[in-house]
Amino acid sequence: MARLERGIGCADTRDKTRQQVVSLIRSAGQIARIDIAAETGVSPATITAITQEMIQAGLVEEVAPGTGRPASGRGRPRVSLKLRGDAHLLAGIKVSFRTLSVVLVDFEGTSVAEHVAPLSAPRVSPEALAVEIRALLAAATAEIGQTVDDISGLGVGLAGTIDAIAGFVHWSPSLTASNVALRDLLEAALPMPVFLDNDANLVAKAEQLFGEARGVRDFIVVTIEQGVGMGIVIDGEVYRGTRGCGAEFGHTKVHLDGALCRCGQRGCLEAYVADYALLREADVSMPGEAGSSAEDRLNRLFLAARAGEPTAHSITHRAARMFAMGLANLVNIFDPRLLILSGERMSHDFLYSDEVLAAIRDEVVQVDAPPPEVKIHKWGDQMWAKGAAAYAMEGVTDLAVRRLAIDA
Amino acid sequence: MARLERGIGCADTRDKTRQQVVSLIRSAGQIARIDIAAETGVSPATITAITQEMIQAGLVEEVAPGTGRPASGRGRPRVSLKLRGDAHLLAGIKVSFRTLSVVLVDFEGTSVAEHVAPLSAPRVSPEALAVEIRALLAAATAEIGQTVDDISGLGVGLAGTIDAIAGFVHWSPSLTASNVALRDLLEAALPMPVFLDNDANLVAKAEQLFGEARGVRDFIVVTIEQGVGMGIVIDGEVYRGTRGCGAEFGHTKVHLDGALCRCGQRGCLEAYVADYALLREADVSMPGEAGSSAEDRLNRLFLAARAGEPTAHSITHRAARMFAMGLANLVNIFDPRLLILSGERMSHDFLYSDEVLAAIRDEVVQVDAPPPEVKIHKWGDQMWAKGAAAYAMEGVTDLAVRRLAIDA
Amino acid sequence: MARLERGIGCADTRDKTRQQVVSLIRSAGQIARIDIAAETGVSPATITAITQEMIQAGLVEEVAPGTGRPASGRGRPRVSLKLRGDAHLLAGIKVSFRTLSVVLVDFEGTSVAEHVAPLSAPRVSPEALAVEIRALLAAATAEIGQTVDDISGLGVGLAGTIDAIAGFVHWSPSLTASNVALRDLLEAALPMPVFLDNDANLVAKAEQLFGEARGVRDFIVVTIEQGVGMGIVIDGEVYRGTRGCGAEFGHTKVHLDGALCRCGQRGCLEAYVADYALLREADVSMPGEAGSSAEDRLNRLFLAARAGEPTAHSITHRAARMFAMGLANLVNIFDPRLLILSGERMSHDFLYSDEVLAAIRDEVVQVDAPPPEVKIHKWGDQMWAKGAAAYAMEGVTDLAVRRLAIDA
Amino acid sequence: MARLERGIGCADTRDKTRQQVVSLIRSAGQIARIDIAAETGVSPATITAITQEMIQAGLVEEVAPGTGRPASGRGRPRVSLKLRGDAHLLAGIKVSFRTLSVVLVDFEGTSVAEHVAPLSAPRVSPEALAVEIRALLAAATAEIGQTVDDISGLGVGLAGTIDAIAGFVHWSPSLTASNVALRDLLEAALPMPVFLDNDANLVAKAEQLFGEARGVRDFIVVTIEQGVGMGIVIDGEVYRGTRGCGAEFGHTKVHLDGALCRCGQRGCLEAYVADYALLREADVSMPGEAGSSAEDRLNRLFLAARAGEPTAHSITHRAARMFAMGLANLVNIFDPRLLILSGERMSHDFLYSDEVLAAIRDEVVQVDAPPPEVKIHKWGDQMWAKGAAAYAMEGVTDLAVRRLAIDA
Repeated sequence: MARLERGIGCADTRDKTRQQVVSLIRSAGQIARIDIAAETGVSPATITAITQEMIQAGLVEEVAPGTGRPASGRGRPRVSLKLRGDAHLLAGIKVSFRTLSVVLVDFEGTSVAEHVAPLSAPRVSPEALAVEIRALLAAATAEIGQTVDDISGLGVGLAGTIDAIAGFVHWSPSLTASNVALRDLLEAALPMPVFLDNDANLVAKAEQLFGEARGVRDFIVVTIEQGVGMGIVIDGEVYRGTRGCGAEFGHTKVHLDGALCRCGQRGCLEAYVADYALLREADVSMPGEAGSSAEDRLNRLFLAARAGEPTAHSITHRAARMFAMGLANLVNIFDPRLLILSGERMSHDFLYSDEVLAAIRDEVVQVDAPPPEVKIHKWGDQMWAKGAAAYAMEGVTDLAVRRLAIDA
Repeated sequence: MARLERGIGCADTRDKTRQQVVSLIRSAGQIARIDIAAETGVSPATITAITQEMIQAGLVEEVAPGTGRPASGRGRPRVSLKLRGDAHLLAGIKVSFRTLSVVLVDFEGTSVAEHVAPLSAPRVSPEALAVEIRALLAAATAEIGQTVDDISGLGVGLAGTIDAIAGFVHWSPSLTASNVALRDLLEAALPMPVFLDNDANLVAKAEQLFGEARGVRDFIVVTIEQGVGMGIVIDGEVYRGTRGCGAEFGHTKVHLDGALCRCGQRGCLEAYVADYALLREADVSMPGEAGSSAEDRLNRLFLAARAGEPTAHSITHRAARMFAMGLANLVNIFDPRLLILSGERMSHDFLYSDEVLAAIRDEVVQVDAPPPEVKIHKWGDQMWAKGAAAYAMEGVTDLAVRRLAIDA
Repeated sequence: MARLERGIGCADTRDKTRQQVVSLIRSAGQIARIDIAAETGVSPATITAITQEMIQAGLVEEVAPGTGRPASGRGRPRVSLKLRGDAHLLAGIKVSFRTLSVVLVDFEGTSVAEHVAPLSAPRVSPEALAVEIRALLAAATAEIGQTVDDISGLGVGLAGTIDAIAGFVHWSPSLTASNVALRDLLEAALPMPVFLDNDANLVAKAEQLFGEARGVRDFIVVTIEQGVGMGIVIDGEVYRGTRGCGAEFGHTKVHLDGALCRCGQRGCLEAYVADYALLREADVSMPGEAGSSAEDRLNRLFLAARAGEPTAHSITHRAARMFAMGLANLVNIFDPRLLILSGERMSHDFLYSDEVLAAIRDEVVQVDAPPPEVKIHKWGDQMWAKGAAAYAMEGVTDLAVRRLAIDA
Repeated sequence: MARLERGIGCADTRDKTRQQVVSLIRSAGQIARIDIAAETGVSPATITAITQEMIQAGLVEEVAPGTGRPASGRGRPRVSLKLRGDAHLLAGIKVSFRTLSVVLVDFEGTSVAEHVAPLSAPRVSPEALAVEIRALLAAATAEIGQTVDDISGLGVGLAGTIDAIAGFVHWSPSLTASNVALRDLLEAALPMPVFLDNDANLVAKAEQLFGEARGVRDFIVVTIEQGVGMGIVIDGEVYRGTRGCGAEFGHTKVHLDGALCRCGQRGCLEAYVADYALLREADVSMPGEAGSSAEDRLNRLFLAARAGEPTAHSITHRAARMFAMGLANLVNIFDPRLLILSGERMSHDFLYSDEVLAAIRDEVVQVDAPPPEVKIHKWGDQMWAKGAAAYAMEGVTDLAVRRLAIDA
């Protein structure tokens, strides 16, 4: 498939309507034209014109309603529209501490392949990352008899301070370099458009599309991995801040002149709850065998804490209290409908404990109305990757719709 | 003028277009129909129909472009539209610790009367507040030869936890009662629709409409009065949270197990920077004459701090450090384009000091991009009242537009 | 009785032996000369000479052993020595927040009169204090048919920073003036020698002589009244520091940049546990009726805390945690055999709670040896006064023994 | 020389006088009998008898006054007494993190040999320590043509919680085992009596005998090495606490729920100022090359801090503030005449800075009297070892004097 070109120009009103239509079809699964007109407030005539373009472009197809199969042509009024799954193949990649995870999805959002590969080092150069991503995409597409060139769009999520609009990485714990125009660099090395974002924002997107936040307009996702991430969704949109530097929950200060963070500042939440913060306490007071890995030492800490060893418990307990205080601050500022604590590792149970939930309730502003729901959602890197794929799907749809407009 | 009725039904697409048109005319001052069509993306025919309704309803009038006066009828292409100032008289009231301030504005937003009256007590019953508000409106309208019945809408801002959409006061330091349906109560006592909001949100609105935030889509206003307030504007809209309980900046926690707040929780920012927090430290360590007022004692504190008295300086210095830490947290979460520190009192200079601004810069996430601009805007209760009037103007426009739709 | 003169010269070795003998007789009640020689390591001949002087001076008398009555003269080996109770009448006064308490004791330490009088104000001038003390002594002696002139020595304990050796008050919460040579001032106004000390040191003396610390050489007494006091006994002697400014437990810092103390510094223990510290939190978060007394408001706080009211409990709980931390620090520095928590008021139960005791155990250096015993001793001002009387008894004995030496 | 036996029985009065006489001769250098009688208050006849015993036992010899040489026998009135340097050879050992340092002194206190050897590991077994000490003593005595058997007594100082009276090590960072009867173990392995103490107490003794505290009765020494140590001298005697667990300055708490200490508790001073505390902050925020030694990384930190690097400065600055707070607490409790900050390493300058001294002054109780003098004394392990030798000298004198008593 010919590469979709970015930057054709600004979306006009008709573009917005087209995007709205695709989005509506995707969330509905299948839907009749008349219902599309009703939901969007656009005239049925316009909807008919727009969807005709989409069918011709191969993005959309007609189905007999209720069957999920392409319409046989009989019974016009019962004809609905659905997305054509094979219209585009999309990839989502999550860059983790030690691994790359990829998910391939079709244009309907159905997962068609998943793959995980070790990352050559915890921190790599941007160029090396591009090479490793290309190899991973090659391996994943090979599983389904396709090639990297068949992918219409790639979403990439990584930790750090990332300006998603500009495709620019201010800083990432996964990269050896700072201030990298990573999207351009990846697009130069790969045959498809690339959509880059902070990984927590992609978790937010995944939660919104196929997780705990379906149907919720205002919610916050907090993620725990090596550090603490946050995705904010306001009125259905991921909130990104002005410079792409917002949602830095891990670096909100919870103690004046407090513990030193790896960012060089004092009192950051991460300096109390991130893995390195737990380890520097554990290493001093519960010295393990020299040379054992950080992961092993963390696991020993968690086991000891669960077994009631006082020092280990003191370490996880203080982290939990600080975490609760930070979460309560988010609720006090945003008053969201829903707060999702999202993480892959069962080991961090202490951060999702009843104690934390109770502390949040105690520290939010007390009114005669129920506090926000707090949901705990444990999942793995594949779900992060799926969020990245969803992000790519949005981006590709946007590009495809703009091309429709040009061709129209 | 007949009372505009609330709750006629949900706005449909055409309503939204009408509101958009009024809003565009208001911000432009005057504007030709063809420019309205271009800016809104709505067809010129529709714009012509909509504005005709408005002219007939007396909301809008034609002017000769560039003159600001009603059009003489010659030279059709040069005819523009403007709002009719005398279409509606609107009132905005700010409920302060000891005073009520009112501003009357016409439908163009021009101030036509201002008035201040002492409040009978720092905390009053909702019923008493209604009586005092009515008396104030009577006095203010009398100045311009009108009566309370001539007011089309009233905006009221007060401190506290307020659900603006529901018109409900969870809690306010100005009221003796909690959980009050204050909007309904005021509307029962007054002849016009009432629009109620947290006062800091109204400052945000005022900053947006005629203050430091004109043209800025994402900004935060932090206000200092008796307590600490915050208004968040995201993508041009005041963000209110799910239960109307968001933006509780004063109750974000800055210290685990810290100083006790009057809300009953520990470590709230207010427990370090609010007047009561400063006073409880000053009263213990620098005892003044018994019986002197809180205001006098605060002023003595501020004078002593400025004169370099060590204990007084220690009090204001710690408040400043905590305040900076709280503000840095806001920047770390929102990454706004602009942060406005807004307050009426020169005495709180230490909270707007270079030291605070430097501390914010040191405590935000460091990237190779300039941090948000921080502006300091000192103003008085009249500006808060003007924000309340602007809020009423929006509400009245909304109601008027809906009536057009019904009449249409 | 002729006034005993101070400052006759330094004690020589023989003086020390005489003091040792009196002290031994007092603690034994009655004791044979041969046992005195054995206990002191002084030759029986010297003991016989010394005690003969004392009998002639009227300080000591012979008793038939086991009877407690003066010896009849028969059965020389059975003769013991005891102090002559009527040798001296001694007074001890405790200056409290609102009251003066006096105890009169005879030279054996038996209480012969007690009296309490209101103090004219919480803080008085040194001159006024002298007048009130004289009146109180007059009233107390009148009860037993004696006069102020019959008192051989007066011990006075008051809170503050006091150089006991110099009889100098650096600062006291009971006095309107600072830097007062209070002992000289009282001696000029009264007919007997005066022995002045910090009240907590006198509690330590009382505990040592007739309280919980009998027979213990190394212990610490911590007192809770308006503020926090401490008396340190090392090797049987009250430790006073170089300038009389030691044992300022209440002003040890428990938090960097912490709560403001009335001394003007930050983070002092008193700023978390003293009455004023509890009240400034209670007044903000649980406002009572204006104008009620501090005592009433404190009592309401304590009742509410005991009833489980969360904010009240938060106030006393934090005070208790800080108190435990301060006490653990004392143990970590001194490793005393015994720690006595001594206070008059049942209301401060939360500071003597099992929670505090457990926290101390958790925060002292852990070794395979039992931690110091912690005893809780609740008593009233009369016991403080008795400590003051004991202090006077020591001082008078010292003067009397020196006179013996001169006369010898 | 025959081994001096410990535990012959309690000292009686005459023993105490003999010890007093030796001590007086040692501090005077040389002194006439008549002056000894005057200073001790003991009769000249007794002094003559006692010193005759000592001359016969070889501890003391006569000198012509002013010459320092043995008296020629002429001019009786001019004859003084001095200690016989060759009466006993004494050894002092300091166990450091990586080295053993020894000083050999004669009975007059003159250093006759010094030696340093690497320790086989930072932590060794008690048995291994005995072997390494014996080897070191053999090497040091060989230098002066003597053997281990010629040493009359050995003082050993090591860090940790040590009951000096019982010769028992509760815990030491230098030993792999806890709860060790180390004195008995060393005496079983060596031919001389051993005197064991906490190293900071030996520094206190060294300061008192030949350092900054000569002639001061009440002072505190704080030492900085791997951790923080303290020696307290009250009325001329090292204060040891009841269980030998006092003076644990490094484990006084300076922050409730603060940083985790290697002792397993939170908020200990050491958790902010000890090497490991500085390193765990430096390692997280200023990662150095993997595999470099702790010492190298510390040095890099100190250099960076001195060069003004913000994160490094933040690390040392916070340590300095906490250290000052801890020191102010010591002054507030003890009010000593003198506070000595004693350490070997120039690198810890930030703990002895003007900033720290100013902070101490600001945080002690303010009275109209000068605060304690603070002296900074930088020295090396040899001085610690000399303190250990002085301790051995005291112990050997004690044993020698008791033998005199038995022989008498």
